[in-house]
Amino acid sequence: MTNDRLPFPFPVAAWTGASVRLIDQTRLPVELVFRDCRTIDELGEAIRVLAVRGAPAIGVAAAYGLVLSWHLGVAAGEDLPALGRGLDRDREALAATRPTAVNLFWALRRVHDAAVAALASGADTATVGETLLREARTIHDEDIAMGRALGRAGEALLPDEGAVLTHCNAGGLATAGYGTALGVVYAATEAGKRIHVYADETRPLLQGARLTAWELQNQGIPVTVLPDVAAATLLRQGRVDAVITGADRIAANGDAANKIGTYPLAVLARRHGVPFYVAAPSSTIDPDTATGDEIEIEQRHPDEIHGHRGERFTPEGVAAFNPAFDVTPAELITAIITESGVVKPPYDLDTLLPKC
Amino acid sequence: MTNDRLPFPFPVAAWTGASVRLIDQTRLPVELVFRDCRTIDELGEAIRVLAVRGAPAIGVAAAYGLVLSWHLGVAAGEDLPALGRGLDRDREALAATRPTAVNLFWALRRVHDAAVAALASGADTATVGETLLREARTIHDEDIAMGRALGRAGEALLPDEGAVLTHCNAGGLATAGYGTALGVVYAATEAGKRIHVYADETRPLLQGARLTAWELQNQGIPVTVLPDVAAATLLRQGRVDAVITGADRIAANGDAANKIGTYPLAVLARRHGVPFYVAAPSSTIDPDTATGDEIEIEQRHPDEIHGHRGERFTPEGVAAFNPAFDVTPAELITAIITESGVVKPPYDLDTLLPKC
Repeated sequence: MTNDRLPFPFPVAAWTGASVRLIDQTRLPVELVFRDCRTIDELGEAIRVLAVRGAPAIGVAAAYGLVLSWHLGVAAGEDLPALGRGLDRDREALAATRPTAVNLFWALRRVHDAAVAALASGADTATVGETLLREARTIHDEDIAMGRALGRAGEALLPDEGAVLTHCNAGGLATAGYGTALGVVYAATEAGKRIHVYADETRPLLQGARLTAWELQNQGIPVTVLPDVAAATLLRQGRVDAVITGADRIAANGDAANKIGTYPLAVLARRHGVPFYVAAPSSTIDPDTATGDEIEIEQRHPDEIHGHRGERFTPEGVAAFNPAFDVTPAELITAIITESGVVKPPYDLDTLLPKC
Repeated sequence: MTNDRLPFPFPVAAWTGASVRLIDQTRLPVELVFRDCRTIDELGEAIRVLAVRGAPAIGVAAAYGLVLSWHLGVAAGEDLPALGRGLDRDREALAATRPTAVNLFWALRRVHDAAVAALASGADTATVGETLLREARTIHDEDIAMGRALGRAGEALLPDEGAVLTHCNAGGLATAGYGTALGVVYAATEAGKRIHVYADETRPLLQGARLTAWELQNQGIPVTVLPDVAAATLLRQGRVDAVITGADRIAANGDAANKIGTYPLAVLARRHGVPFYVAAPSSTIDPDTATGDEIEIEQRHPDEIHGHRGERFTPEGVAAFNPAFDVTPAELITAIITESGVVKPPYDLDTLLPKC
């Protein structure tokens, strides 16, 4: 069990000069270890097994992945055309790791576009490499700035003293280090508010119990973990002032995909008159997705349900249903908190899109 | 992992002549082992750790517990007054094991009353012992008959082919062997219907993943396990024809306490137009509890949330919220299925009470 205090914003992903270095989130809270990905396969595997997870964090890790792609090609003595083909191939490989989060595709496109532009302008290998790294670091820095701006925009919604309920981990560990849903809590705390967080444990992978609890404790914020379905009891008892979750993709109409369990939470919040906020960077908004019905929902491996670290829960031979996400309809979302401000229905999300 | 086919109704609890023998439900589905409780302390511990669980099953086990009490007193050479005091003491000890399920108190009262009546009529030690055992076996037999009658009453609500969603384990393992919510499924299957069961895994103790999946597979009924919060997705997608759960206590107005997570399921079922049924014997109805607000909700140990078999999920030092039950208001319950028939709102539950 690690109680090591980490620098904040958390060093979720970084380029070391030879690897993409990640906090290995599969090992928290038992131990705080870093995972150096020295090949695209290793990075892809780290994304797939959720060593790095959370839509914005995946975007930053993948952006550094294209830096790694270029670095490996250069080390192998490839010429510019081969390096360009490698970049295309590795962009595709990284995009294929997770299907739902739009930030992944967005970050890959941004870094790839920067390289293509540099190549088109006749830049040499070193310059293109610098361009890739600069763009990835810009995405990283922007994400931290986004978290701070989003947090400041959202904290005004919270009382001076109160309780926030959250699901999964939309914290520093899910972003480049500051957080979205938890970014609001961090900003409120920095503003002197006393916020208690109720963290849904978030089956099957327990990101709430493991990661949200760990990072809030690391930052000295009181946190209580609960089974996901016990949230209904807290809401009914009037013990929650606001529900805040992240989002993995927001459709143009405001429908939001997020970790499985978010939708029922929104239904319960509405029933009990508790505001339900989605906190996400504007890069999470996908103008090409008209409504939530169009969002592809990743189905994860049934073994996440069948057992844990070699111990079997279910009998052999039974089936499991394990969707990674669900979609919360816009009508249940009190407001969407972004780095550009708090948006209330009717959602006119086009105005929030990052200018590219 | 055990796939041993058990006799049906399942031998959940029995009097061996020297012990109360239970299927140890903490070990399923990994292994099928029996647990012999030779003292009241051992039986109380078995109830507390949920080696036997489910309101009707606890009632039957506790009824045999008073048989054990008498047996131990006789073996110790106690006279009738001492035996009677032992019975009072052990009834109290067993009643203190779990606070929510009313069947526990009801079964203890029935067996105790039978002994008191026998004592008052001048019966000798052996005769009182026989009376105790006869009453406990009657409760056991009645529970199986209850399950069959309840199942037959409820199966008419199911389509010839369809899917039932259930939460926790309200099956043969939760009763004297036949089941309540799953009793409806067994009766439908016996009537030739093809029913697929979606089983909420039921955090924190995974009675759905472990027990419901195991007993349905044991009976050859197809079952799919899912994280509790994924039920909302199934309901929204129209993949569920009916939700059926058990109940640990039903108030006079129809409010029903059941495993934590039942209430949000009822809210979601209502939202998506899926009928929500509570299946329970009439002994679950407590006329002394006017509404659900009066039902004491057991808080279980936070360690059930913090980890599993020595592995820690949460960081040391964070708090956990772990209520065992929640209360579903009568207005969300489409019908209550009992051994006396299907009751629809407005609930007039007094007519269903067992005649004592």
